[in-house]
Amino acid sequence: MSGRRGRRPGRSDTRSDILSAARDAFAEHGYDRATVRDIATRAGVDAAMVHHWFGTKERLFQAAVDVPFDPQELLLDGAPDDVARLGEHVVRTLLRAWDSPRGRVALALLRSATSSERAARMLREFVLARVVRPTVARSEPDPHRAAWRGALMASQLAGLVVVRYVLRVEPLAGAPAETVVGAVGPTIQGYLTGPLPGAVDEDARSAGNVEISTERHVAP
Amino acid sequence: MSGRRGRRPGRSDTRSDILSAARDAFAEHGYDRATVRDIATRAGVDAAMVHHWFGTKERLFQAAVDVPFDPQELLLDGAPDDVARLGEHVVRTLLRAWDSPRGRVALALLRSATSSERAARMLREFVLARVVRPTVARSEPDPHRAAWRGALMASQLAGLVVVRYVLRVEPLAGAPAETVVGAVGPTIQGYLTGPLPGAVDEDARSAGNVEISTERHVAP
Repeated sequence: MSGRRGRRPGRSDTRSDILSAARDAFAEHGYDRATVRDIATRAGVDAAMVHHWFGTKERLFQAAVDVPFDPQELLLDGAPDDVARLGEHVVRTLLRAWDSPRGRVALALLRSATSSERAARMLREFVLARVVRPTVARSEPDPHRAAWRGALMASQLAGLVVVRYVLRVEPLAGAPAETVVGAVGPTIQGYLTGPLPGAVDEDARSAGNVEISTERHVAP
Repeated sequence: MSGRRGRRPGRSDTRSDILSAARDAFAEHGYDRATVRDIATRAGVDAAMVHHWFGTKERLFQAAVDVPFDPQELLLDGAPDDVARLGEHVVRTLLRAWDSPRGRVALALLRSATSSERAARMLREFVLARVVRPTVARSEPDPHRAAWRGALMASQLAGLVVVRYVLRVEPLAGAPAETVVGAVGPTIQGYLTGPLPGAVDEDARSAGNVEISTERHVAP
């Protein structure tokens, strides 16, 4: 009730115009390459207006995809200095978020992401930029190997979410969080700091060949 | 054209009635507990009619969920006698199916499974019964540990599919299949034959307590 008092008519249209433009921009360019300036232009407003309504690009993204929490904040909160314990910390943090009431909101977001191509791309860009890359950066300096470690970690985490929360496969669905941390933590640890197969480095060399690289990365 | 000649009007309604009843039964009871007799009753036909149209329960399920191939057949085709190489075989088989044109049909099925609760339950039951359990049975005799190994394997395989084919995260999306086999195969192998954390066996003991077990396995 009192929240409506300060708003003039038309303002909430501006806000929803900005959100709509942001969804387009994030889906088209990804989280990293989308700019507040471009989003403002699409929405037909000044960039200052975007900052006024949403503060940072991160907050704008969270509003655009309706993320109920900042995953990076959760991830780095209490992260161990010891890189050898990073794997179990990542799994524990993921489960804490998904086991909470906020997990239900995240589940709805995930469902929309798998049924819509645009939502899938937004989710991917956000998770990569705000969860995967900052985590991998703690242990892997080489960019090519970091990309591999990030994608592999994402595959195990995504699958854990799907099997525990979407498909509800037992005993993973009903097990206490710490049991799951003990079972999946070592896999994440291995992807973050363990050996990668030789073919991954071969792949880095062939990625230097622009033709192969382009052909490979074009979506069907 | 010639396929229509032998059909009398009304028969194709029977077929679609059976498929509809099968979808209900599989979603409600799961693949293992659903019976052809029950499906026939739901469809208002004789069980012999179901066998006439679809042969086995497996074929009926495949028709009901429109699965374009039998995953178990793919999985066991060329499976190594050496259990130590089972992990990479599972990943290689999964990628061969998804990288083929049939993968596009499977992708559509997966999308419907994450957006619909009923489709999700059907998919889960099918994958568990026809892919996960037969694979795990090759290396793990203990039922409780087999359930854990199966769920963990399913989590990595599901996540690989999501990240490579749905979200298309690079470099996993564009990498050659054998590079992915080298990177993910050891994880699957670990889940199939490696050590499980002690908490998994603790979990088995507490599952003997019916009250805890019931509470844990009830869906919200």
